[in-house]
Amino acid sequence: MKAGRIHAYHEPITIDDIEEPKIDSETDVIVKIGGAGVCRTDLHIVDGIWKDALGNPSLPYTIGHENAGWIEAVGSGVKDLHKGDPVILHPLMSCGICPACRAGQDMHCTHSHFPGLDGTDGGYAEYLKTSVRAVIPLAPGTDPVPLAPFADAGITAYHAVKKLVPLTVPGTFVVVIGIGGLGHFAVQILRALTPATIIAVDTQKQRLQFAEEIGAHYTVLAGADGGVSGVRSVAKDGVNIVLDFVGEYQTPQAAIAMLAKGGTYSVVGYGGSVNVPTLEFVNREINIVGNLVGTYNELAELMELNRQGKVKITATQFPLQDAPRVMQMLDRGEIMGRAVLVP
Amino acid sequence: MKAGRIHAYHEPITIDDIEEPKIDSETDVIVKIGGAGVCRTDLHIVDGIWKDALGNPSLPYTIGHENAGWIEAVGSGVKDLHKGDPVILHPLMSCGICPACRAGQDMHCTHSHFPGLDGTDGGYAEYLKTSVRAVIPLAPGTDPVPLAPFADAGITAYHAVKKLVPLTVPGTFVVVIGIGGLGHFAVQILRALTPATIIAVDTQKQRLQFAEEIGAHYTVLAGADGGVSGVRSVAKDGVNIVLDFVGEYQTPQAAIAMLAKGGTYSVVGYGGSVNVPTLEFVNREINIVGNLVGTYNELAELMELNRQGKVKITATQFPLQDAPRVMQMLDRGEIMGRAVLVP
Amino acid sequence: MKAGRIHAYHEPITIDDIEEPKIDSETDVIVKIGGAGVCRTDLHIVDGIWKDALGNPSLPYTIGHENAGWIEAVGSGVKDLHKGDPVILHPLMSCGICPACRAGQDMHCTHSHFPGLDGTDGGYAEYLKTSVRAVIPLAPGTDPVPLAPFADAGITAYHAVKKLVPLTVPGTFVVVIGIGGLGHFAVQILRALTPATIIAVDTQKQRLQFAEEIGAHYTVLAGADGGVSGVRSVAKDGVNIVLDFVGEYQTPQAAIAMLAKGGTYSVVGYGGSVNVPTLEFVNREINIVGNLVGTYNELAELMELNRQGKVKITATQFPLQDAPRVMQMLDRGEIMGRAVLVP
Amino acid sequence: MKAGRIHAYHEPITIDDIEEPKIDSETDVIVKIGGAGVCRTDLHIVDGIWKDALGNPSLPYTIGHENAGWIEAVGSGVKDLHKGDPVILHPLMSCGICPACRAGQDMHCTHSHFPGLDGTDGGYAEYLKTSVRAVIPLAPGTDPVPLAPFADAGITAYHAVKKLVPLTVPGTFVVVIGIGGLGHFAVQILRALTPATIIAVDTQKQRLQFAEEIGAHYTVLAGADGGVSGVRSVAKDGVNIVLDFVGEYQTPQAAIAMLAKGGTYSVVGYGGSVNVPTLEFVNREINIVGNLVGTYNELAELMELNRQGKVKITATQFPLQDAPRVMQMLDRGEIMGRAVLVP
Repeated sequence: MKAGRIHAYHEPITIDDIEEPKIDSETDVIVKIGGAGVCRTDLHIVDGIWKDALGNPSLPYTIGHENAGWIEAVGSGVKDLHKGDPVILHPLMSCGICPACRAGQDMHCTHSHFPGLDGTDGGYAEYLKTSVRAVIPLAPGTDPVPLAPFADAGITAYHAVKKLVPLTVPGTFVVVIGIGGLGHFAVQILRALTPATIIAVDTQKQRLQFAEEIGAHYTVLAGADGGVSGVRSVAKDGVNIVLDFVGEYQTPQAAIAMLAKGGTYSVVGYGGSVNVPTLEFVNREINIVGNLVGTYNELAELMELNRQGKVKITATQFPLQDAPRVMQMLDRGEIMGRAVLVP
Repeated sequence: MKAGRIHAYHEPITIDDIEEPKIDSETDVIVKIGGAGVCRTDLHIVDGIWKDALGNPSLPYTIGHENAGWIEAVGSGVKDLHKGDPVILHPLMSCGICPACRAGQDMHCTHSHFPGLDGTDGGYAEYLKTSVRAVIPLAPGTDPVPLAPFADAGITAYHAVKKLVPLTVPGTFVVVIGIGGLGHFAVQILRALTPATIIAVDTQKQRLQFAEEIGAHYTVLAGADGGVSGVRSVAKDGVNIVLDFVGEYQTPQAAIAMLAKGGTYSVVGYGGSVNVPTLEFVNREINIVGNLVGTYNELAELMELNRQGKVKITATQFPLQDAPRVMQMLDRGEIMGRAVLVP
Repeated sequence: MKAGRIHAYHEPITIDDIEEPKIDSETDVIVKIGGAGVCRTDLHIVDGIWKDALGNPSLPYTIGHENAGWIEAVGSGVKDLHKGDPVILHPLMSCGICPACRAGQDMHCTHSHFPGLDGTDGGYAEYLKTSVRAVIPLAPGTDPVPLAPFADAGITAYHAVKKLVPLTVPGTFVVVIGIGGLGHFAVQILRALTPATIIAVDTQKQRLQFAEEIGAHYTVLAGADGGVSGVRSVAKDGVNIVLDFVGEYQTPQAAIAMLAKGGTYSVVGYGGSVNVPTLEFVNREINIVGNLVGTYNELAELMELNRQGKVKITATQFPLQDAPRVMQMLDRGEIMGRAVLVP
Repeated sequence: MKAGRIHAYHEPITIDDIEEPKIDSETDVIVKIGGAGVCRTDLHIVDGIWKDALGNPSLPYTIGHENAGWIEAVGSGVKDLHKGDPVILHPLMSCGICPACRAGQDMHCTHSHFPGLDGTDGGYAEYLKTSVRAVIPLAPGTDPVPLAPFADAGITAYHAVKKLVPLTVPGTFVVVIGIGGLGHFAVQILRALTPATIIAVDTQKQRLQFAEEIGAHYTVLAGADGGVSGVRSVAKDGVNIVLDFVGEYQTPQAAIAMLAKGGTYSVVGYGGSVNVPTLEFVNREINIVGNLVGTYNELAELMELNRQGKVKITATQFPLQDAPRVMQMLDRGEIMGRAVLVP
């Protein structure tokens, strides 16, 4: 089968012909890929940024961690999944045994594999092998192809918003910084799960207009101060929550400056640094919350929101063959919404 | 009456003769001071560090924000409090009307006064005027004098620990950095409220021995690495919670390095800075929690723990007259435990 | 001034001429009544049902506990409220001092007064005296008259729904039994605060149609089985939550029968009885939650939802003079939505 | 191997010679039984009380659902477990795939097997086959035999107490009704996890004395009123929580009568009925919480408490051969603490 594989860091991936995966274990599931989202993390993998954090995986391997498709084959211990069923995949193959899995914290599984990242073959391919624990069935008849970006961009935004639900009441102000792939999900999910008043902050007017269309109540163009004055003109005592999908440049500093007493800064984007005097944590009693992907149940809940029409996605499809070119386009900022590779 | 007052920044306070406070409002309460704790914040006030944050209060005024004593007089609207009743005082005079007060978040009251800090006369005096909302009755017959340090050092430690209770199960590791006034309360409160395993970290062996006596399960002398390697030798995957009562020098950096995946760094001490790449918040999904004093109900709960014998205090008493000298002693590190001024 | 007062149980109230209330305390507030909601509880008061529970209040007194209007006069300690400001009133005069008030649990205040119920004069009148702690300012220019029913029917529904928010995720089924005054608020509040799928149950088709218009996803006509089979045809494994605004006849039994494993039965209406074998609590791990009015902050949050257009009210206005007749109409089921008396 | 099996309802079990279980699946684990607790539920099984609830399992099968021992053999997919490792078993074989398992709610698993109850062979035997998901490793060198009762009695008490932790602060009153197998665990777990004041209620003086020894602060002999007046003499406004390990006769009625405003009745024992007017849920805003066994992580946490010496067990050991006789003894009330069968 065709598969987009990394052979060396700092070099474009290539489309290779490799063997199809086979069922080895009772709990294996092979999925015929319908769509594989192209994520900025894929660029970072090629750049070698994740190499050490992922334990220096041996090359080559197939990338792609945002996958949806149809059941192709299942191990002998798998029930209730049949060939042709449309599914979306949780990005991790978790063990189901460790305390983190027991508590539903799939991302902190101590025995996990991460297809497309840690050397396990991912979804830029015709078929992908994963575990039954990663498979979320979609409603019969659903077309899985356009839904692939929910598998990583969607779940991550959902996970971050869901942790904030207990902090929101009518009148709560939530700033969303960065209305890109994750941010546009976050605005819709905030509308679906909370009564909060949403202020979208971005550096591009076009994205702010988009934010309004999908549910933001206010928009602020991030200028020299990262949007602080604009946000403070809407919420003069500061906001209760800032959800930051950028996490670099000046956004951490701006986010802290936007917070009201007792406020919470939720970090999703990364690349920059948080530098805050400890006095700020005491004097204003503020908090910072980290976020890492999300749980299986959270992805299932998000797909239910999508089924109900409350969270939509805009994505452009490209043939799998074009993967190297699409990655270049993403790098040059030429992809609107999310790109999905179709084998 | 005698009162210890600040007349100019960077100059010692003086013991003056001033008029006793009078009942002006239905909700006023005048307390005959039994004991007033001497806090490092009192030194900071004289140094002018808080001047701007407190809105540049007009001088002179009486300092002292950690007070206990007996009811002397009450306004016409005050019920259930009578002359001679032993009481301890919440440090704030909160309004009871704003949304923060309504939610029990006294410290975020938008119309509060802070005796001893913001220009309102405090407790280095024979009598103090406060509001009925600040008064916590003690069990009949209780001697309030030695209990004064609960009013600020105690409540602050209790507030910080209580927020962490939902994060603790048997097997949870909690590091307490700094076994001074607040830290020694924290160790005892952790024992009373949680099943956590407690690791005390300090730069002084003597304090670590004290920590063990009051309930710490492990102790680590903070060396060049701030105790990180010592803590990791007890909890090799890191700890779930770090409670930092120092908050300066290398402690924030060490605290972050001690955390396990999903861990929480709780900041109480201040003076230094938190500098963390946003990637850390994402990759390890860690959190930071700020803390500001505590609520009225929390101080009441702490006094109940004290009544039950679960949280004890060691303090040395000095005459009010000696306040200037006691402040110098504190500055030179010559006070063991907490100093309490007795009029 | 005119006031609708109860002189004897089981006899209609009369419209009397009485003295206007006066400011006695620093924290008193006198409100010029704009509208006073007519509640089934007012009928129960006249029937003497509450007599013992309320400590046998001395007659006569003015009834009416669902009030909105404008500030008329304030005590010397009241800030930020001025004559003519539109306001809605929390039904209780709470003390602000007891542990329940400190925790924001106004309804469990141990020193409260309840105008219109416990012998304290209520709002079937031109003016009402309450405490500053009961006053919720409305946005400038708001007409308070039609909003009166939020003060009791609204807050009670909001309080009950808010407690259930942590139990709802996308896909959660919530049954609302009884689409009357409280139930119609609950449907809208569920839509505003949660992603739950709402099933409305009522004995009247007209009310079910209304439920759909205001946001219910499914409707079930309660027949001989109280709607159990209809609900189970929508949610075959049972529902996660049943919110019961009837609480008598067969509704408790039906509610328990509708629940899925781990489900929660939330009781708001009363008059009947819950009879459940303890085995049911164990085998299905179900829960029952009681509800009593709500907190000040909850009413403030609800008014914010109303301001945002998310929760609306339909009410008919009558002159205060007609109070005895309106109460008869309510008793005969001739009031659609809520009746509001206007002095 | 020897196994104690039920062949017909209402007839004593017999000790049969049957084949040892074999590994069939990658995730199978065979445990050499060290001890199997004898539970009142075992008597109920023989009485046929559970027959319908368990789907009329085909007879004969081996009973015993409270098991500990050593690893004997494991399937090819099982890591980190080796022959001879001491283990205790979660009573359920859960699937690890359904939403309940994903959320850590093992007991609500939709594809579970329950060895010793639902026709799957249990632990009154030399060997037991279960799933890797049920196995909790004990510290190396631990003797698993006396620990068996933690596997059901212990976990059930722990689960019930843990749900109540968020409701307890210093000063909270918790009543424990029934100081038998589960109740004696509950008292110790309350001491380990909460600062609550514990009132033990029982009909036998000897058990109350035992309650005091293991940590109860007050004891009340349940007389004609089920202990209500005794409890009210300790806590005159009622208690915040009642944990009921009896759940029949007059205990539900007494429990409700003991509750303060806003209180919670937690049901663990069963057999009787809860009969409460809906007005009680409204007027006092009380709650009822059901409880069903507990989760894998909860049992692991409990074993950690046991390892720390905070929760102890008293049990008497009998040879497996004597199982029929021991069951008779239990039925006649002749077992003190818990009986454990040893093959």
